[in-house]
Amino acid sequence: MSTFKANARVYPLPPNPVAVICLDGCADEYLSTAIARGKMPRLASMARDGWRGMVRGALPSFTNVNNSSIVTGVPPRVHGICGNFFLNPETGEEVMMNGPEFRRCGTLLTAAADAGRKVAFITAKEKLRTVLGDGVVERGGIVFSSEKVDEAKKETHGIENAMEIIGKPRPEIYSGDASIYVLEAGAALAEQGVADFLYLSTTDFMQHKFGPEAPEILDFHAKIDAAIGRLLDAGCTVALTADHGMNAKNDAAGDPKVIFVESLLREKFGNALRVICPITDPYVVHHGALGSLVMVHLDDPALSSAVADFLFSQKGITEVLTREQAVDKLELAPDRIGDLVVLSGRDVVVGKSPEHHDLSVLKGGLRSHGGRYEEMVPLVISKPLTPDLKRVAEGDPRNFDVFFFACSV
Amino acid sequence: MSTFKANARVYPLPPNPVAVICLDGCADEYLSTAIARGKMPRLASMARDGWRGMVRGALPSFTNVNNSSIVTGVPPRVHGICGNFFLNPETGEEVMMNGPEFRRCGTLLTAAADAGRKVAFITAKEKLRTVLGDGVVERGGIVFSSEKVDEAKKETHGIENAMEIIGKPRPEIYSGDASIYVLEAGAALAEQGVADFLYLSTTDFMQHKFGPEAPEILDFHAKIDAAIGRLLDAGCTVALTADHGMNAKNDAAGDPKVIFVESLLREKFGNALRVICPITDPYVVHHGALGSLVMVHLDDPALSSAVADFLFSQKGITEVLTREQAVDKLELAPDRIGDLVVLSGRDVVVGKSPEHHDLSVLKGGLRSHGGRYEEMVPLVISKPLTPDLKRVAEGDPRNFDVFFFACSV
Repeated sequence: MSTFKANARVYPLPPNPVAVICLDGCADEYLSTAIARGKMPRLASMARDGWRGMVRGALPSFTNVNNSSIVTGVPPRVHGICGNFFLNPETGEEVMMNGPEFRRCGTLLTAAADAGRKVAFITAKEKLRTVLGDGVVERGGIVFSSEKVDEAKKETHGIENAMEIIGKPRPEIYSGDASIYVLEAGAALAEQGVADFLYLSTTDFMQHKFGPEAPEILDFHAKIDAAIGRLLDAGCTVALTADHGMNAKNDAAGDPKVIFVESLLREKFGNALRVICPITDPYVVHHGALGSLVMVHLDDPALSSAVADFLFSQKGITEVLTREQAVDKLELAPDRIGDLVVLSGRDVVVGKSPEHHDLSVLKGGLRSHGGRYEEMVPLVISKPLTPDLKRVAEGDPRNFDVFFFACSV
Repeated sequence: MSTFKANARVYPLPPNPVAVICLDGCADEYLSTAIARGKMPRLASMARDGWRGMVRGALPSFTNVNNSSIVTGVPPRVHGICGNFFLNPETGEEVMMNGPEFRRCGTLLTAAADAGRKVAFITAKEKLRTVLGDGVVERGGIVFSSEKVDEAKKETHGIENAMEIIGKPRPEIYSGDASIYVLEAGAALAEQGVADFLYLSTTDFMQHKFGPEAPEILDFHAKIDAAIGRLLDAGCTVALTADHGMNAKNDAAGDPKVIFVESLLREKFGNALRVICPITDPYVVHHGALGSLVMVHLDDPALSSAVADFLFSQKGITEVLTREQAVDKLELAPDRIGDLVVLSGRDVVVGKSPEHHDLSVLKGGLRSHGGRYEEMVPLVISKPLTPDLKRVAEGDPRNFDVFFFACSV
């Protein structure tokens, strides 16, 4: 079997097409419930005939961080994407990492294209296309988002008339359709032999809105399952994982349980500090920029220990790590994180200040992610594991091993 | 509906029999795999018609700690059982908490018996019977272990001729049968109307030995499922949870990944410290007394910060908490834990010293628990949640809410 190499990892290249799906925000409970209710018969067959288990994602358990890890096969310490935003230590400015120039290594998508595969990378959100899709079109591959599928052109996206090929018009980004479209588009490309190495990455609009039992999300998963079936029927090895889990973050009255870290700290330690919410992105309706991990930047590093102790003593805060500890334990890049990295509990989010977050966008309560309780995610593969892969799975497998699994079964 | 009260919590008392199952060491993956392979049709029906989700256990994620929480409905800070062993601060001796005198509150089993229910508490391990079964027989209930079912007598266990009623001889404790027997015994008592409020607690011998896909454990779960079916057919509301999860803890060569904390610390800080492995129990074949949480006791508390920093810098150590932090964050009792509480990663265990652990008992690699990565466990209930319970489930539900769920659906 031929192989290809990316970021010091060697991947086999199987003769059949490979489709890796990152189902954004897919906590394992979504799959268990959808399978139990008979909504995902094709995924249930994958779990029966292949493998289903739990893998550990990268922290912060955010979308860009984990999608970056999945397409590079390495942790954030190597690829450098430790959130959507970071505080540039050289300029003191908050920077959105919305281009490939922030990534510090190549992707396995371009490496697979170099090895002769017909690569297609389809996302729901346009931001992921721009951050991770570089170099693929130049190598004959296809990269577009369902959000802007109508803008796809041969020279910039590797595909002309995408909507005709897929057979559906552009979906609304704030919808379940934006994600279903990604999988249907991948299925169409696989069916037509236009692509044989696919990365299909959805958006978690639905998961932010609905718990596993909601009729809306059961219907959503039924459609996801039908598209998975098309990929399987097209001969693909299918591997499904998630970037992060998802938990409700509300009190008994249904209001978000928020700790405003910057307000709290400024009251006690003064204004010479800043809090960055690295979940912040242009799609605020999902979560109001509230997640379960924030970065604290201190003008005076000597305050670090006192601030850390104070923060850790707050109810709902579960971990406070120094920059060095976060590099070591969370595998983060030292110049892309705060002096302190702060994580909150299963039902708690951390924010900046009340003024900074518009909670009115959160209809029906907050569901979010970013912390330790959204770190573990499912991995489902359509073929059984080889003995070698079983040994990997019996250790501490990661969601960013998904391409290795998919190419090796 | 009538109610009963235990440890400041009010429980409804439904007219039908209630059976709560604690499937020892049942990481959620066991259920997903068994269901996918068609081995647990009755549990699959429960998930379809009732509810399946994830709940948070108590830390340390050990058996006695979580069984104590389940039968009291409160965290370890209240009931005081923070492990199998603790270092008595008054005597300096390591004490096994093998009797009810170590527990600091009553159980909901006796409260339910006082409210007129026919309580049966059946365990696999005799140790759990002695630690948690006090007061039940005096109130007309039944308490015995499958390990010593042949010793059950009316005056001491509330039942005579238990093996005849169950229709099977005593199983071997180091077997899957020891656990299956517990559920079959419960089913027999429910079928015969001898009990209508059951707590059935198994042993994790099989889970320590086998991963979710092993044919042996698939067969085990098929038998567990058949017994669950008998409980359902007897009219019981069935609620199944676990005391803790289970993870493989081996390196790529298949050898246990162990950090010997006492050896490591004595080399650096001298001999004036002790490490307690609170997973230690008389059933060492399961895990060689190696789990993912240990207690560090320091003769000189002034060393605390230096020792904590040193430990946290070790690869594989994921959390180090001071006593005060552990009381606050892990809900532990201050006089039952160490100066430091040390947790290790998904695939790593912590021990005392190489001499202290007999790794030769570990045939086929180590699977164990005790840390953060074995904290989240499944909860499956045979009836759908009420709107009130849905709100609880959308927060941070605990495995020791299981009786509340089972009595409230």
